[in-house]
Amino acid sequence: RSQCVLQAKTIFPKNNVDLSKYMARPVTSVEKLQETSSDMKSRMEVFILEKQKEICDALQDIEGDIKFKVDRWDRAKGGGGITCILEDGQVFERAGVNISVVHGTLPAKTAQQMRARGRPLDATKPLPFFAAGISSVIHPRNPMIPTLHFNYRYFEVQEEGKTVWWFGGGTDLTPYYLDREDVHHFHKTLKNACDKHDSSYYENFKKWCDNYFVVQHRGERRGVGGIFFDDVDTPDQESVFSFVKECANAVLPCYLPIINKHKNDGYGYHEREWQLLRRGRYVEFNLVYDRGTKFGLLTPNARIESILMSLPKTARWQYMHEPEDGSKEALLMEVLKNPEDWV
Amino acid sequence: RSQCVLQAKTIFPKNNVDLSKYMARPVTSVEKLQETSSDMKSRMEVFILEKQKEICDALQDIEGDIKFKVDRWDRAKGGGGITCILEDGQVFERAGVNISVVHGTLPAKTAQQMRARGRPLDATKPLPFFAAGISSVIHPRNPMIPTLHFNYRYFEVQEEGKTVWWFGGGTDLTPYYLDREDVHHFHKTLKNACDKHDSSYYENFKKWCDNYFVVQHRGERRGVGGIFFDDVDTPDQESVFSFVKECANAVLPCYLPIINKHKNDGYGYHEREWQLLRRGRYVEFNLVYDRGTKFGLLTPNARIESILMSLPKTARWQYMHEPEDGSKEALLMEVLKNPEDWV
Repeated sequence: RSQCVLQAKTIFPKNNVDLSKYMARPVTSVEKLQETSSDMKSRMEVFILEKQKEICDALQDIEGDIKFKVDRWDRAKGGGGITCILEDGQVFERAGVNISVVHGTLPAKTAQQMRARGRPLDATKPLPFFAAGISSVIHPRNPMIPTLHFNYRYFEVQEEGKTVWWFGGGTDLTPYYLDREDVHHFHKTLKNACDKHDSSYYENFKKWCDNYFVVQHRGERRGVGGIFFDDVDTPDQESVFSFVKECANAVLPCYLPIINKHKNDGYGYHEREWQLLRRGRYVEFNLVYDRGTKFGLLTPNARIESILMSLPKTARWQYMHEPEDGSKEALLMEVLKNPEDWV
Repeated sequence: RSQCVLQAKTIFPKNNVDLSKYMARPVTSVEKLQETSSDMKSRMEVFILEKQKEICDALQDIEGDIKFKVDRWDRAKGGGGITCILEDGQVFERAGVNISVVHGTLPAKTAQQMRARGRPLDATKPLPFFAAGISSVIHPRNPMIPTLHFNYRYFEVQEEGKTVWWFGGGTDLTPYYLDREDVHHFHKTLKNACDKHDSSYYENFKKWCDNYFVVQHRGERRGVGGIFFDDVDTPDQESVFSFVKECANAVLPCYLPIINKHKNDGYGYHEREWQLLRRGRYVEFNLVYDRGTKFGLLTPNARIESILMSLPKTARWQYMHEPEDGSKEALLMEVLKNPEDWV
């Protein structure tokens, strides 16, 4: 386990690399990032490095004394990542912000799974790939503050000498108590980000999100959604990258006002118990259905602790628990069973 | 939700059905059980009804005031079950003993999964099936008492007019702290039960258990094993039924001495936290790898709460938690990584 806190505030003014803006040294060497600064692989890495620092700093400011642990790790077969995690804080029970930049060859089995997702990859032989992404799950302690999840990623595969690339990502909210104003604000902020790029994005990606984060065996959504997309490679690389940056930049404006509004809300044993039961459902979704998690757990030598960073600190199960009719808990269940249009 | 506590203590002295020995009315009507009393389907149902009551009574005696809830449920497409669950007790944080007796047609998809398990079923058309089983997970509160899981089941499929049948099952132990004497007693009791039937059973089924309950992404077993078997249909139905009864009868002798030995052991915050982290691993195994759970969650209209009764009341995750070298927690991890021969 390599634990590494950035010491030097070295700036390379002639290019895109500024170490003071990152939580740790980049995964790729500074030299290589400089040499290939116009390559999308480098641009995405630099972007997620900056985004990770910006988000950790913003959460750290709210939290106070408990600090993010910074874990920079290497992947034996190429690349690595930086895991930042804050546990047992006053505001945040568990907040993880992870970036990974990995490359190597994609086993046939994995490529076949991608084919099944609609992207036809030649799965008979291993394919060289590159993936860079940022992903985060933030579980606050106060049940009046929703859990936030977001993930933005860039993927490249070399197929018969040709580079196939795409972006994916999304941001979604999992409240324990429904505050309609919060959910409206959250979706409206995402819609504004989407609308700057394509007027069809928000509607499509909101629906995609509602259809993806489903705890199927319960017939309920994990939360109140947001946006989710994958395999986006149109109209062109520059436009999609610009859209992905817009979405990632919208994360803090989506979420910070909700944290600040509720961080001092009162709650008791009843609300905490309900939050823990809903966190049990979060665990059920992530371990049973989430593609990223399943994909990660099946990957030999994957960094399990960075993958399972998404799980809450504590989760609970109770036989046949059902909220009372008309209770605040029942109101939440209503929108988890029947997603609404929030904007 | 049908909640039903058996009121009448009706005995039908001329046959195998004695309602006073069950937690609730049988799933199959008493008339049918009487008419078909020599059929293995009825014999297995009567056996698991009795076993459920015997085990619940034994746990209830240890627990004291908090009682088992008894939930008798019907399955729309044929059969039903009786779920008995005790939560938030002094000794048992969550103890579930479930029986189910279901029949109907096996969808082609499900039959194919069975084919993949080595049993060649004609998966192009739906097949009539019958399944009866008892399954139980007992999560005590005291971290010095291990969690117990057992499951015994009988399966029949009608294939081109011919009845294909088999038994499966197992009993396994998941300690939080290693007491070698306990584990020896547990395995020895199972070995004695096995040895009465086939001298190769214990060795084979112990190995099967070690290979089955693996949290693959962690490279560790869920617990210290026990026995596990499936698809057993030799030498003949009577012999296998007799073996399965022997195993189910061994559950209490395996476990009660361990509960009684440790139920008043002292423990503190440190031991409780470790127990909760290990329960997180229990959740990971059950939701990611357990065939029964995955099969259940994929089944339309399955009784989710009875399937997920196996999950602990509370589970916890902590980033990169590792026990200190030489600690009692590290000693446990050693045997979870390298299963031993206990007898």
